[in-house]
Amino acid sequence: MAPLLVVLYFGGIVLWIAALLIALVGVHEFCKGWNNIDVHPSKEICYVMTVLLFLTRFVPASGSVPAYYQNMMLMAIWMFIAVAIGLIYGWKINERRAYDAATTVTAMVYIPFFTYHMTLIDRTEYRLFIWIVVIAAFGSDIFAYFTGYFLGKHKMAPNLSPKKTIEGAVGGLIGSSLFAWLFGFIFMREMAAVCLVLGLVGGAAGMAGDLTASAFKRKMGIKDYGNLIPGHGGIMDRFDSVIFVAPVVYYVICALTGILAV
Amino acid sequence: MAPLLVVLYFGGIVLWIAALLIALVGVHEFCKGWNNIDVHPSKEICYVMTVLLFLTRFVPASGSVPAYYQNMMLMAIWMFIAVAIGLIYGWKINERRAYDAATTVTAMVYIPFFTYHMTLIDRTEYRLFIWIVVIAAFGSDIFAYFTGYFLGKHKMAPNLSPKKTIEGAVGGLIGSSLFAWLFGFIFMREMAAVCLVLGLVGGAAGMAGDLTASAFKRKMGIKDYGNLIPGHGGIMDRFDSVIFVAPVVYYVICALTGILAV
Repeated sequence: MAPLLVVLYFGGIVLWIAALLIALVGVHEFCKGWNNIDVHPSKEICYVMTVLLFLTRFVPASGSVPAYYQNMMLMAIWMFIAVAIGLIYGWKINERRAYDAATTVTAMVYIPFFTYHMTLIDRTEYRLFIWIVVIAAFGSDIFAYFTGYFLGKHKMAPNLSPKKTIEGAVGGLIGSSLFAWLFGFIFMREMAAVCLVLGLVGGAAGMAGDLTASAFKRKMGIKDYGNLIPGHGGIMDRFDSVIFVAPVVYYVICALTGILAV
Repeated sequence: MAPLLVVLYFGGIVLWIAALLIALVGVHEFCKGWNNIDVHPSKEICYVMTVLLFLTRFVPASGSVPAYYQNMMLMAIWMFIAVAIGLIYGWKINERRAYDAATTVTAMVYIPFFTYHMTLIDRTEYRLFIWIVVIAAFGSDIFAYFTGYFLGKHKMAPNLSPKKTIEGAVGGLIGSSLFAWLFGFIFMREMAAVCLVLGLVGGAAGMAGDLTASAFKRKMGIKDYGNLIPGHGGIMDRFDSVIFVAPVVYYVICALTGILAV
């Protein structure tokens, strides 16, 4: 937890490096999980495309165009190239199966794409919201654990994650909303209400991220994605929620700052 | 061919409807192809997300923000939601396999996402470039056929597409470049050089789209994606190149008009 707090405190290039590492180790673990059921996405394509996506951060913003939009444009171009290269990976029909191409595409548009939003949040004028991502992801998990421990009766997803209860989920969402609100109240008071909403929506997204990772792990026949952090599994076991929350928080910030202009 | 010319001539909402239909029938055929090898992406999710992507066209542009950028922002949000929902489809671990989620994601970020760029091109100030998409996709194919017929000696991709030759590919690229240049010279003279380049790059992208569709069809054990157009196969058999060329042309236009600001 301590290194995470340091990364969030410094932000900027420190956060960028941390997010890049999460994305790289994340795709590695995800691809390795597929290997376990004899599906072989291209790790090499995933690594190269992950680095390329993160490098778009250093394209200087033009004077007339808001940085947000330039990020989006570069991300869209990246998305097209990533999908196209993933599909092209399937051309070697004698060596590869159609799954191998589809899972290469999925690995890229899931892990690096989602994770990259952490660095996008950090570049907005509301960079403190990066803390809300972590509060929503870990807060909802911790509050759900304790609420479920004391009050849990009804199983939420018996096949997928047998320990989770509906009572726990509700407690997790209430806890993360209040915690996010408190953070907002202390550090950016005019945004406290927004933080409350993000604690709720982000908490739900975090649970979705957790269940998604659980579903893949079960189908891949593995308990954990890795063992990088002793006792905590791999990067994807720890950050499965965080990477799902980051895009939600980022696009809410976009709506707030009016640049969505809907 | 005639209905296609009418669609390109009118552009606007006519092109939007045509592109939406291509995307909808395209994902349908792609999912059906997967069914053939017992993989079951969610057609329903693909349909709904395709319609949602195309509906972003009707979000009014704000005064201060260029329409291009707003499109990109909405597309990025769509991309996140599409990937997330595709992954969530895998939660029902007792009924579905991990492939089913990955192929649902792949279907969406491949077919509707690529196809949507046709409508984006139509909304720029260089809407005539939509013709270049078709010229590059079909022109390279036709010129490759005739060049290969008369001069073809060296097989290009014997397993994937046994009739294609290297001589044919070179002839196809030269032909589509010259044809695109001629179109530019007649209809938008100051852009003739750009058209030449797009004929070359777009022609190559079209061949990549064709080979990608071939690879999937072979792995799926089908000859054609469908039989919608008698004697021509399905929509994906006809438009596999077009949907690969559209993003390439769109992003080159973006670079041209300076909005990439790199």
